[in-house]
Amino acid sequence: MLDEIFNPKSIAVVGASPDPNKAGYHFFRGLVNLKFDGDIYPINLDGKDVLGFKGYRNLRDVPAPIDYVAVAVPATEVPKIIEDCVAKGVRVVHIFTSGFSETGRADGKKLEAQIIEIARKGNVRIIGPNCMGIYHGKIGLSNFGVFPSKESGPVGFISQSGGNTGDFARMGLVRGLRFSKLVSYGNASDLDSPDFMEYFAWDPETKIICAYIEGVKDGRRFVKALKEAAMTKPVIILKGGLTEAGTRAVSSHTGVLAGSDAIWQALFHQTGAIQAKSLNEMIDIALAFLYMTRPKGRRAGIVGIGGGASVAAADSCEKAGLIVPNFTEDTMAGLEKITPVAGTSIKNPVDSPVGRRVAVPEYEKTLRLVTSDSQIDFLIAHLAIDWRINTPEDRKNLGDLTDVLIRIRKSIEKPVAVVLRSSQSLQSWQVFLEEQKRCLEGGIPVYLTLEDAAAAVSKLILYHEFRGKVT
Amino acid sequence: MLDEIFNPKSIAVVGASPDPNKAGYHFFRGLVNLKFDGDIYPINLDGKDVLGFKGYRNLRDVPAPIDYVAVAVPATEVPKIIEDCVAKGVRVVHIFTSGFSETGRADGKKLEAQIIEIARKGNVRIIGPNCMGIYHGKIGLSNFGVFPSKESGPVGFISQSGGNTGDFARMGLVRGLRFSKLVSYGNASDLDSPDFMEYFAWDPETKIICAYIEGVKDGRRFVKALKEAAMTKPVIILKGGLTEAGTRAVSSHTGVLAGSDAIWQALFHQTGAIQAKSLNEMIDIALAFLYMTRPKGRRAGIVGIGGGASVAAADSCEKAGLIVPNFTEDTMAGLEKITPVAGTSIKNPVDSPVGRRVAVPEYEKTLRLVTSDSQIDFLIAHLAIDWRINTPEDRKNLGDLTDVLIRIRKSIEKPVAVVLRSSQSLQSWQVFLEEQKRCLEGGIPVYLTLEDAAAAVSKLILYHEFRGKVT
Repeated sequence: MLDEIFNPKSIAVVGASPDPNKAGYHFFRGLVNLKFDGDIYPINLDGKDVLGFKGYRNLRDVPAPIDYVAVAVPATEVPKIIEDCVAKGVRVVHIFTSGFSETGRADGKKLEAQIIEIARKGNVRIIGPNCMGIYHGKIGLSNFGVFPSKESGPVGFISQSGGNTGDFARMGLVRGLRFSKLVSYGNASDLDSPDFMEYFAWDPETKIICAYIEGVKDGRRFVKALKEAAMTKPVIILKGGLTEAGTRAVSSHTGVLAGSDAIWQALFHQTGAIQAKSLNEMIDIALAFLYMTRPKGRRAGIVGIGGGASVAAADSCEKAGLIVPNFTEDTMAGLEKITPVAGTSIKNPVDSPVGRRVAVPEYEKTLRLVTSDSQIDFLIAHLAIDWRINTPEDRKNLGDLTDVLIRIRKSIEKPVAVVLRSSQSLQSWQVFLEEQKRCLEGGIPVYLTLEDAAAAVSKLILYHEFRGKVT
Repeated sequence: MLDEIFNPKSIAVVGASPDPNKAGYHFFRGLVNLKFDGDIYPINLDGKDVLGFKGYRNLRDVPAPIDYVAVAVPATEVPKIIEDCVAKGVRVVHIFTSGFSETGRADGKKLEAQIIEIARKGNVRIIGPNCMGIYHGKIGLSNFGVFPSKESGPVGFISQSGGNTGDFARMGLVRGLRFSKLVSYGNASDLDSPDFMEYFAWDPETKIICAYIEGVKDGRRFVKALKEAAMTKPVIILKGGLTEAGTRAVSSHTGVLAGSDAIWQALFHQTGAIQAKSLNEMIDIALAFLYMTRPKGRRAGIVGIGGGASVAAADSCEKAGLIVPNFTEDTMAGLEKITPVAGTSIKNPVDSPVGRRVAVPEYEKTLRLVTSDSQIDFLIAHLAIDWRINTPEDRKNLGDLTDVLIRIRKSIEKPVAVVLRSSQSLQSWQVFLEEQKRCLEGGIPVYLTLEDAAAAVSKLILYHEFRGKVT
């Protein structure tokens, strides 16, 4: 069962070297940095020590059992290493090395077939080749130099692309995601997306499954695994290669057949898996699932500052398939009492009275009125960072406003999302990151633009609508 | 003629106050900070000095002519001020104050009509009310606290929304845009979008016209002005209020009729103006116009690092209506010589050999081969910031790679765009800004994502295709 593969007690890195220009050095350093909860062994031709760990010339020389082997040596040497793994009783081999079937060349394909034959006979499972392998932060298993600590979280990621895995992790960390397990499986010569999909569907550490898929070898098995996974938890998929040019690029990258856009659209429709259009959107959607409860419907209450931004908010929501309803008479009457007539709007989207002047109590009253309106299923609030960072008083005001949002979030059942618009000047971006952290701790997902928030919430609702139909 | 309005020799701010909580203070400070090239006078009820400038109780007390007046006093006091302006022979009044026709209320509409009547009779032009007025950085005229200096540039912006004007300026500055003139005209009670469109079409300081439009009062005049402007220079428009909810928000914001999406689509088609979907996309498109020559066609050569990113690049280009052709045999043969077989692609998009190892000469050769291919009309290169910031050597490598791009850009006629992918961690974003600066100085526009680059280049081509048809 795959759980063993994600939980090895000992790991050897073949090709681990003291030379920082070698990939094997970085794989080994990943384990050292995260203080892997077991034994680690560097293997290299000279038997050199790496980062203070005793080195061996050959796997077979290691005087202890090895569960997991990462391989970063030239392709032609890999079959020999797999034989060593078989002899040593290794459970799983992650092959970083590329130059196999993905080249489209006969010699590469032959070499890959040879490896698989050795592994199958010897009862060793293969991840890859041509991939970055596994991250399981909780036990300190990481081939990625991305993670500062063992701090883990609920998001799993299955990816055909190693680069996308690293990018998703880096971008996700910045936006507040934390990960249960990541796997980059490359050419999928043995373990493939359906294996990992089945495992993540079961894995109690994973609450949300994200996946980057370029193509599928066994379509029937993939659909079954995806359908079952999507019944147990949200599955968000970025499909690479939906255009003709993208399909050609997929074939150069991992050597699989991409499948047509129509097939994939049908698949999403059929399984209830959610399609993301980019890694950024995948992160946006994951944040909605993590921080927002199920909205009762598609009706957005929007509260923000700025008329142009309010227009954009309304357009973005409606384009994303959300509804921006009129408030009830009671809400309008309540808003009218606290909102100056000039330069504001008490209709939905509310253009709030919080301008340059601090008007925190009115902001809180506004949000309470809007979120208690029976016409509203969820709240999207938006604030402009740059409008309130010029003075310490402005900066404090911004914090006060997010405090209000957090209080509202904790006192109501309707879900809340916030957009913190930023010019992304270095100062503005630093404040974005500070306020994002506070919002996330307060249980509110943070988006960069109104379009992003609307799209993510719409997909959250789509998921729940699908489940409502099938359960 | 409007050129006088944009080039006043003296300005008074009515409502200018020493109190930083008043809008009038900030308008006045904008002029002080940018060292306006003329005389400035603060006017307030107590005749208080502001920021060291002698204050007056009334416009009529100022012992010199005044060309331009900014007004930030309560709405009911505005008619009296306009009378003072008429008496003083003022040419244009910018009314920041809101509470007029945009409220939808009879009293607000009446007050606005009253102001216009006084102004028309007295031969005074009005900008606003309910707006941020004019920025003309070169002479230090700015009502926005956004600009650090008189540094100007080729981008003009016409906007119905003051918040969007400030946001566009802030975001644009970060991305490398510099501005000729900005105007936020709010309720357009007198001067309206066609006036500014005509002026910007003529204005030699403005090479690209950007506009945020919520609605149009005189449709025929607007279409004529837009058509003529789009014949002389690129016009990029963000239309606010294209959905039902957006239209309602527009009506609360500036009190105009938004017009249907179909009408606007026909308008774009008919005039050759380019539609932007957001302020961010407007900036992206403006960068393409500023830094890229006319591509001969839609055929993209894509060179980047990372297989997943290459697939995304191909998908993004094709979705945006660009073509990702196969290279010629010669190019492929050339690439084959310098590219290792494993983990790379020599097809378009090229997944380049520059991995962790520094391979600058091969990178340059790769770019030269791709850009000289007869099948290719322009280059999109992409680099991942986070992959090369962990060590000083990595950081240097990144700079070396952008140096190569700049050399290529300067030695070929085909246009070049670069995508600098970033996790937007604070460190990564700082490096993005550093490398962006170098690329822009080297004549290359910089994008955050492959989707953004593809969309912007596609719209650049659309503009040239339209002009090719009509000229």
